[in-house]
Amino acid sequence: MKDVVVAGGTGRTGREIVQYLSYQQGIRVVGVVSRKYAGLQMSSIINGLPYDIPVFPDLISTLSSVQPDVWVDFTETNVAREHFVSCVKRRIHPIIGTTGFTEEDRELFNNLCISYGCGGVLIPNFSLGAFLMLQAIRLGAKLFSDVAVIDMYLPHKTEIPSGTSKQIIAELKKLGVFHEGKVPFYSLRLAGVTAYQEVKFGGSGETLSISHNVSDRSCFGLGVTKAIQKVSYFNRLVTDLAEFI
Amino acid sequence: MKDVVVAGGTGRTGREIVQYLSYQQGIRVVGVVSRKYAGLQMSSIINGLPYDIPVFPDLISTLSSVQPDVWVDFTETNVAREHFVSCVKRRIHPIIGTTGFTEEDRELFNNLCISYGCGGVLIPNFSLGAFLMLQAIRLGAKLFSDVAVIDMYLPHKTEIPSGTSKQIIAELKKLGVFHEGKVPFYSLRLAGVTAYQEVKFGGSGETLSISHNVSDRSCFGLGVTKAIQKVSYFNRLVTDLAEFI
Amino acid sequence: MKDVVVAGGTGRTGREIVQYLSYQQGIRVVGVVSRKYAGLQMSSIINGLPYDIPVFPDLISTLSSVQPDVWVDFTETNVAREHFVSCVKRRIHPIIGTTGFTEEDRELFNNLCISYGCGGVLIPNFSLGAFLMLQAIRLGAKLFSDVAVIDMYLPHKTEIPSGTSKQIIAELKKLGVFHEGKVPFYSLRLAGVTAYQEVKFGGSGETLSISHNVSDRSCFGLGVTKAIQKVSYFNRLVTDLAEFI
Amino acid sequence: MKDVVVAGGTGRTGREIVQYLSYQQGIRVVGVVSRKYAGLQMSSIINGLPYDIPVFPDLISTLSSVQPDVWVDFTETNVAREHFVSCVKRRIHPIIGTTGFTEEDRELFNNLCISYGCGGVLIPNFSLGAFLMLQAIRLGAKLFSDVAVIDMYLPHKTEIPSGTSKQIIAELKKLGVFHEGKVPFYSLRLAGVTAYQEVKFGGSGETLSISHNVSDRSCFGLGVTKAIQKVSYFNRLVTDLAEFI
Repeated sequence: MKDVVVAGGTGRTGREIVQYLSYQQGIRVVGVVSRKYAGLQMSSIINGLPYDIPVFPDLISTLSSVQPDVWVDFTETNVAREHFVSCVKRRIHPIIGTTGFTEEDRELFNNLCISYGCGGVLIPNFSLGAFLMLQAIRLGAKLFSDVAVIDMYLPHKTEIPSGTSKQIIAELKKLGVFHEGKVPFYSLRLAGVTAYQEVKFGGSGETLSISHNVSDRSCFGLGVTKAIQKVSYFNRLVTDLAEFI
Repeated sequence: MKDVVVAGGTGRTGREIVQYLSYQQGIRVVGVVSRKYAGLQMSSIINGLPYDIPVFPDLISTLSSVQPDVWVDFTETNVAREHFVSCVKRRIHPIIGTTGFTEEDRELFNNLCISYGCGGVLIPNFSLGAFLMLQAIRLGAKLFSDVAVIDMYLPHKTEIPSGTSKQIIAELKKLGVFHEGKVPFYSLRLAGVTAYQEVKFGGSGETLSISHNVSDRSCFGLGVTKAIQKVSYFNRLVTDLAEFI
Repeated sequence: MKDVVVAGGTGRTGREIVQYLSYQQGIRVVGVVSRKYAGLQMSSIINGLPYDIPVFPDLISTLSSVQPDVWVDFTETNVAREHFVSCVKRRIHPIIGTTGFTEEDRELFNNLCISYGCGGVLIPNFSLGAFLMLQAIRLGAKLFSDVAVIDMYLPHKTEIPSGTSKQIIAELKKLGVFHEGKVPFYSLRLAGVTAYQEVKFGGSGETLSISHNVSDRSCFGLGVTKAIQKVSYFNRLVTDLAEFI
Repeated sequence: MKDVVVAGGTGRTGREIVQYLSYQQGIRVVGVVSRKYAGLQMSSIINGLPYDIPVFPDLISTLSSVQPDVWVDFTETNVAREHFVSCVKRRIHPIIGTTGFTEEDRELFNNLCISYGCGGVLIPNFSLGAFLMLQAIRLGAKLFSDVAVIDMYLPHKTEIPSGTSKQIIAELKKLGVFHEGKVPFYSLRLAGVTAYQEVKFGGSGETLSISHNVSDRSCFGLGVTKAIQKVSYFNRLVTDLAEFI
């Protein structure tokens, strides 16, 4: 049985993750972290949980009450960074789904994981579709020399391009696919749009598009579950969902 | 019978227009203007014409050999501007399908048409789809306050945004649809893409997209044909295909 | 102030409608009908209502407690049919958003509205996008002779084609657009799909698509609100959102 | 230098293939087979060839004039079947891009190739996009259990579903991805559509689409070129472009 805390578990994605995890065999959600809802039980915030889960205000108070094996984090970049460090030092495996981290962060996290012999995870998009998209991009980059990256989100998403686009663009650069020296991207922010990512490869007389549409944040649940089940087999930072699937 | 000259009739769009018009009842293509192919017959350039058509090097030599009622023009902005003026002064109706003209050009052209009592046409996209798109945009602008304009073309199309996007954006501004002070647009240039225009309206929980895809330049033929048939009923500049349909 | 009852107000669409209406000026939701949740208050079912709303088991018990001006109905076809008749006879304006009605139903409803001098509404899709789509279809049917209707929904939507597709196909038939004697349609039912409707017109060398994507059922709120505000000006059956916009 | 004959080289796809191959280093097109245009030179049928190519009426007359290493075939199913057999018996490598063959045909062809120690190729779609699509499908089938196959072509394409869809569906069946016992497909035939193939995977809260759009038949050239260069390394039937890329 893996005991899991979900930090940011009352946010839009966090709630879906809590609900999803609470129904998985071999996983028990023992606490949620949320300053806003601290002191409440999750059953007063979301309907239909199979058991109740206490909400704590911060990491310290959480860890004084429960002893998780894994710390799932959907808070903000700066908060998640602190959580990552604090968890690894306590040999609790952090699984971060928040975006906005730098190459330096990734290096720091990896070194920390190695030092403490404690696996950690930093993946900007836990959906199967985003995973398949990255795999297909690796195939496409060998065949096509022209490429564009498109993301569409609601106006309140201010990160441009999206964290997932950044990951895709970094991958395309690593694979050497360039269009006049850079990967062109387009980030549309429009009311009513669902979360949408697309990679479009162009060749002579043809285009091949791979597009991913999220209609419901439950799509992140399976990837997080797999990471929870397998993170303890690693003693470094994992940044690619492929290592768990 | 309308006698028609097609300037730029050996270019990619021009060839399709010449072929299309050569099969229309009530229309006879009496000449093509092309410096590069001057002196040839069109049958040596495109297959399957029902009758032969001489190619002239320029406007002067064309008009010394044939007497057209209508001058269809798919050359470049500067050349087409001169042709427009020269034609109206001779009371030959110019129909310009080239893009890149300014508001000043349009005013000048209109004044010239009125002075000489000779109808002229300046429409950046003669396809039925582009026409329907503009009509639908007028409806959408009344219902939605969030909008984006997207165009995708082959890399050699350097006009950004496309002439059709410029027309759409001008229309959206006139209709008062703004997104943070401007209409966001995205112009993708990618190998293998067909000519594609999209307008995406966003509202609470929904998007409505109108998209137009050109697979073959024959789609411009019907709009040009209707303009040829009706331009003589006007003595001003027509800039909206709706006036002919 | 319009007093409104929402029948089916605890279903997926119904909840969004109740929440949306509860924040509209000039509208008060005085009751919800739901056999399953009868006796509860809506605040125990959905979060964030500005005032509380009682849930009744059926029409009779509702009307013995509250006196609505308008009856909004998102129940099932057979239940909504009975509600329509009962409401008109009491001169309560019914606004039905459920699908599955026949041409005979519409005739019956219209005759009833005329007899009792009481406006009623039967519209399968209250979103602005579906409304704009129908308007654009009327324009497109004049220009193109080839057309296809596509809908995509989650697997549990068993109505094939969707109610909105049926309305579109009926409209296209009325407008005389045929493809080999019928309007071809495709209904895809796939996990993870959002509610999606598309009409694709085809012509020589071009296609024009109008597509509507629903990411969140709040998109039906504005149309229902407009219908509530204006239904009392009619004494017949209204089946087109255009009459309220 | 590979000497190549293109049977069906005056058809829509055939012309593009002839033009493309005529510019490839290490390949010489020594003849085209076309009953309709027999006796002509290809330069009178398509513009811009670097050298001239004679057109023969049938296989026998072709092989009495030229000695090809490879026989590229874009004729019809029954003709291509005869050509395949005749070529292998003469140890000329057949590369067939025509569709419509059965599992029995494939077995027969393979046995023939093995008997004569002569590699042959039967691939329904030589584009890079179709190849990438198949590769991505193999990845997707491991992750998603819900899938749909969509193709859109011009009305004159009567094969439903398309040959490429058939290949995709066979692959999906082999991979064990089922939706209620079968792979649902939709074949749209509409004026103005470009050749379009899509595979849509659906999961909880997400969809992942892989779509391929052909704007110009030149996209088949590179795949055919690779097959010509490598077919002689095989002494069996190759049915997957992956073996050449």
